[in-house]
Amino acid sequence: MYTAAQLTDFSRRILEEIGYSTEMAQLGAKVLVSADLRGVDSHGVARLSGYIRLWEKGRVNSTPDIKIVHETPSTAVLDGDAALGLMVAPKAMEIAMSKAEQVGTGWVSVKNSNHYGIAGYHSMMALKKDMIGLSMTNASPLVAPTYSAERLLGTNPISVAIPTRNQPPFVADMATTTAANGKLEVLQRKHMEAPQGWIQSKEGQPTTNAFGVKEGGALLPLGGDKEHGSHKGYILGSIVDIFSAVLSGANYGPWVPPFVAFLDPSDDPVGEGIGHFFGVMRVDAFRPKDDFLDHMDNWIDRFRNSKTTSGYDRVLIPGDPEREMEADRLQNGIPLLAPVVEDLTKLGEKFGVVFET
Amino acid sequence: MYTAAQLTDFSRRILEEIGYSTEMAQLGAKVLVSADLRGVDSHGVARLSGYIRLWEKGRVNSTPDIKIVHETPSTAVLDGDAALGLMVAPKAMEIAMSKAEQVGTGWVSVKNSNHYGIAGYHSMMALKKDMIGLSMTNASPLVAPTYSAERLLGTNPISVAIPTRNQPPFVADMATTTAANGKLEVLQRKHMEAPQGWIQSKEGQPTTNAFGVKEGGALLPLGGDKEHGSHKGYILGSIVDIFSAVLSGANYGPWVPPFVAFLDPSDDPVGEGIGHFFGVMRVDAFRPKDDFLDHMDNWIDRFRNSKTTSGYDRVLIPGDPEREMEADRLQNGIPLLAPVVEDLTKLGEKFGVVFET
Repeated sequence: MYTAAQLTDFSRRILEEIGYSTEMAQLGAKVLVSADLRGVDSHGVARLSGYIRLWEKGRVNSTPDIKIVHETPSTAVLDGDAALGLMVAPKAMEIAMSKAEQVGTGWVSVKNSNHYGIAGYHSMMALKKDMIGLSMTNASPLVAPTYSAERLLGTNPISVAIPTRNQPPFVADMATTTAANGKLEVLQRKHMEAPQGWIQSKEGQPTTNAFGVKEGGALLPLGGDKEHGSHKGYILGSIVDIFSAVLSGANYGPWVPPFVAFLDPSDDPVGEGIGHFFGVMRVDAFRPKDDFLDHMDNWIDRFRNSKTTSGYDRVLIPGDPEREMEADRLQNGIPLLAPVVEDLTKLGEKFGVVFET
Repeated sequence: MYTAAQLTDFSRRILEEIGYSTEMAQLGAKVLVSADLRGVDSHGVARLSGYIRLWEKGRVNSTPDIKIVHETPSTAVLDGDAALGLMVAPKAMEIAMSKAEQVGTGWVSVKNSNHYGIAGYHSMMALKKDMIGLSMTNASPLVAPTYSAERLLGTNPISVAIPTRNQPPFVADMATTTAANGKLEVLQRKHMEAPQGWIQSKEGQPTTNAFGVKEGGALLPLGGDKEHGSHKGYILGSIVDIFSAVLSGANYGPWVPPFVAFLDPSDDPVGEGIGHFFGVMRVDAFRPKDDFLDHMDNWIDRFRNSKTTSGYDRVLIPGDPEREMEADRLQNGIPLLAPVVEDLTKLGEKFGVVFET
């Protein structure tokens, strides 16, 4: 077991080693480890060495000038200058929050960025000020639209965080696919079949082969097939792509650069880097804050205590599982798989930073 | 077959008969018939007599004072004064568009409204000004959250309309359930089973009984079951509910008033009427308009012409089926089912307006 402080410290030192300022490295490390704490292990320190490989390829800038390139009172486009999204996204959220303070809401589309960790870290920044936060990002193409045999969209997550009074906040953070890639990796390790509706083969046929995506197939949009509404998952992934990249000037659809360093980006890009989209709404831009918070508590109370289907003892509110995981891991530590420990140890050796096991 | 002009004229006259001004009646009729034109028959003139029954019960106000009750430069809450949502929603969109003109974006949450027709009519209003439009509404509770045996959410649709240059616009309009109620009605008429993942029984068990919802069961959120991501459909429906009603002061969740006059609203409401939420973003609040429109055309072109799975000759872009239906029905007329014709004929007789068949 590892403590969050230990993993954050290690990550910060590695990010400093590749040239990030202490302040940026600390922020990036904090965003990264927030994923481990919340149980989204695929987006935490397990990704660090991948980020460093992108930097080694010259695809990540560690001395970025992140700046606004277009704005109105309620909007901005931020140029991430090829920094890690881990640091670009919080800056975009700060801008959105500041605009919301001024005119009620703030909306920031980001170009020229890289992977930004978990969507939920960024949306949740708004909660401290009792604002509603929204975060989304496009991602490397792995998902086939309904009726398509091509990978044209990423898992394109959406996160929405909504403040409450006494209840824990409502925090949704979801990929717009039926299942995230991380779940497939679990099945692969166990040599199990995937459920119907998760993936299709290289030829575009439904498959339960958990290695289907690795073998050239695609993840399926939420819904799985047309009869179960996959065109709606395709719609959601498309909206994320367009708000994140067509609005900002980033790459979209199949042009989004791969997250892995061994695959090269398109030599015919349609924009710069990957894109994100953020929104912040002040609740008191709509009604008195106390009224809103009281009704959110009532909403959550009613849903959580509704009658359950047999076999389940409660109805979950978005954010419940991750919050409970975080409480557990803050107390008991964060487990890491052996290959991740090995990977981080080697990474540390390369940069002269000891990864203490 | 009926022409759009004929159905609009009839609907306008009925709405005038219950007291709406000619201008409001014309607008309401136009919104209503736009559903018939786009092939969303469940939301068109088939609903007119239901609206009138709500008015007869005193639940619809035909001489409303629709007004802003709270605002900032980028936001407003609109009180629909119990009018039909058909007329309230376009007013909310006008306000959102006007705010977007001023500060880049506009966001309007609406309380004290009623059913607003198809979500897509309203989002598409923004297209005329090359703006992005967003429209959502809560609705009578028919949907059970994941693990719940209770109906706590409506089919809570989301529509997003995005302008283009030479391509037809991107127009998404989707319920946040696996299947809309209208599709169940088709199966019921044909005495067919429903697919797995559409509905659950009164006891909260999966069922393929197409009458399951009528017998006290519930529609399932997009995804169908947990393994296929139903918690994500539940998240989406929840966000629509909260943005539409907790932000505005309308009824939410199980308190949303039923759309049918024979079911009474809760005697312990948590707000006023039903709620909607609208957003408008000026694309040139993010980047030069021409750049945006060109890249949207490129996005659509790439997706539409992607390689298809076997058995399908093209990948659809959101809005394609409805646009093609509208072109067909503008040319060839709108078909109505015999019970709808009978219903409208009787409605006409009651108000002294001839429904010409």
